[in-house]
Amino acid sequence: MFTDSFNISSLDRQHDKSIRMRIDQKTKPPGSLGQLETLATQLASILGPSSITIQAPRILVFAADHGIAEEGVSIAPSSVTAQMVLNFLHGGAAINCFCRSSEIELSVIDAGIMTAIDHPDLIQQAIARGTQNFSQHSAMTRSQAEQALLAGHEIAQTFLRQGCNTLGFGEMGIGNTSSAAAMMAALLKIPADECVGRGTGITDEALQRKLNVVARALQLHAQQLHCPIDILANLGGFEIGQIAGAMLATAEAKSVILVDGFITTAAALLAQKIAPNVADYMVFCHESNEQGHQRMLKSLSGTPLLNLGMRLGEGTGAALAIPLLRAAASFYNDMASFESAGVSV
Amino acid sequence: MFTDSFNISSLDRQHDKSIRMRIDQKTKPPGSLGQLETLATQLASILGPSSITIQAPRILVFAADHGIAEEGVSIAPSSVTAQMVLNFLHGGAAINCFCRSSEIELSVIDAGIMTAIDHPDLIQQAIARGTQNFSQHSAMTRSQAEQALLAGHEIAQTFLRQGCNTLGFGEMGIGNTSSAAAMMAALLKIPADECVGRGTGITDEALQRKLNVVARALQLHAQQLHCPIDILANLGGFEIGQIAGAMLATAEAKSVILVDGFITTAAALLAQKIAPNVADYMVFCHESNEQGHQRMLKSLSGTPLLNLGMRLGEGTGAALAIPLLRAAASFYNDMASFESAGVSV
Repeated sequence: MFTDSFNISSLDRQHDKSIRMRIDQKTKPPGSLGQLETLATQLASILGPSSITIQAPRILVFAADHGIAEEGVSIAPSSVTAQMVLNFLHGGAAINCFCRSSEIELSVIDAGIMTAIDHPDLIQQAIARGTQNFSQHSAMTRSQAEQALLAGHEIAQTFLRQGCNTLGFGEMGIGNTSSAAAMMAALLKIPADECVGRGTGITDEALQRKLNVVARALQLHAQQLHCPIDILANLGGFEIGQIAGAMLATAEAKSVILVDGFITTAAALLAQKIAPNVADYMVFCHESNEQGHQRMLKSLSGTPLLNLGMRLGEGTGAALAIPLLRAAASFYNDMASFESAGVSV
Repeated sequence: MFTDSFNISSLDRQHDKSIRMRIDQKTKPPGSLGQLETLATQLASILGPSSITIQAPRILVFAADHGIAEEGVSIAPSSVTAQMVLNFLHGGAAINCFCRSSEIELSVIDAGIMTAIDHPDLIQQAIARGTQNFSQHSAMTRSQAEQALLAGHEIAQTFLRQGCNTLGFGEMGIGNTSSAAAMMAALLKIPADECVGRGTGITDEALQRKLNVVARALQLHAQQLHCPIDILANLGGFEIGQIAGAMLATAEAKSVILVDGFITTAAALLAQKIAPNVADYMVFCHESNEQGHQRMLKSLSGTPLLNLGMRLGEGTGAALAIPLLRAAASFYNDMASFESAGVSV
């Protein structure tokens, strides 16, 4: 079976007790660093208990277009996907600023933008020039869905083999909250209205249209949604598929997956339905303002680090969380114990 | 009047519209960076609208002891204050780790530790060797309260004159959540049980004792709590007074005040009761797990940036927020506009 190609071991829990003890001997009341302690525990379990090093952290932004955009479900036309990708390549977008301000590497990937872009820094692995409109057809073929997963898997492997151990994922794709919401409904088997939200800011009228489009599409494909790959093929996007594949590769390499907002979390959910152990390697970076994100985080047992009311995507939430990972590593590695500091317990 | 010595102008709002316009022309849907947009607006108003530079950010940790500790209201004895200060000076505490991991300067100040510490890096400005037990006496004299405010004011000025424009405040002082809770109750005129919490982690029994002690002290001093300085004198701590004074100096210098957790917020509340405009310069960095913090933040109209379930103090929440300030500055300064990037609105 295709999904058997992803071979992910569950997180090694044999050091949990010694990690917990090490954290509890630090010069602070037990538990007083809250979520940073949970984060340090997870990072030490993934990267090894002796010392946590966040090495060459990188955000991968996957971009692709969506046939569903022609239904008027977004605030912007599909042409904005390519325009924003050029903005990423020229260093002018929010994700560029956040990566610069926290010394994070950034790569941009064409996973299926409508118009090809010729730029030396753009990683070219478009599966096709946009998906089909999934309210009328399957978004992609089964073979394209598999290709997307494998392409994402491969590009992540490239960076992981170069020494990176922390990959954050972002996306750009006009219409992709519709695709993510439809996938979420199908993967969690819940109604569309619990999944569809305003994306980057549509009106009430557009929201109603978006909800109708997604609900209709779920009905149309109801008999074809047998497995996660089918759900990706019928309702997904090329960037979502590639992100899921890249997450699977990151977990295979026992590295850290930084999950961003609504669309990236839909990719995380897809990856988890393919190989449940992948979730052990995920750090949930922020809670998006998009309705449905909280519900999806809950299904992945994810507690987000940040909640800043953001709804931009691009991996911005993942980039903002990296300093928190570095802080967790720093206290885990370097903070004195009660004994070494001569502090009375 | 003593409080007239602090001369703080309200935040210049004349550039608000142009700041808002600049942010709204960035290549992102309006409002999609959530609280980071509010933060950038505030920073641009404080530091000037043309460009935001977070310059030589520094955490000042003020340490002092509290007579109230003899009532058994804390998980640790007073001797731990000095032990932890030595830990700060040797670089082994959580605040040291977070400052190192985010390239933040750190200074430690003796505002009134029980035993003097001789160390070249410790800033010596103890008002006295600990306060009196405020459940039986005034914590300090009126003159000591004024001295504390002025000493904090002066040390902040020193760093601000050296080019720092962002000061975060932290504290260390066994027993200081009791003092902060009592001050909060007096400053906000609310009952003790809305203010007293578990601090760094006391038992149910100790919590009840702490509540009784604080409630009794509020009754004892009820006739002496005429003004903020009286409240500091009767119920406060030397580190709390010095922090409040330092915050007032920071606002006078039109610089950024980073407010940490429960105790620092009590100092912020004190400063705001002395000179209401000071609140314009405050960034609320995190929501502590301490009961009462949320209520105090509300009274200061503060929306915290982080909520990680922390309850350590030391300025740890302030240090963790500095990368978010840098990110806000970065997008405000460098992000492309729709026009410059050629992105369709």
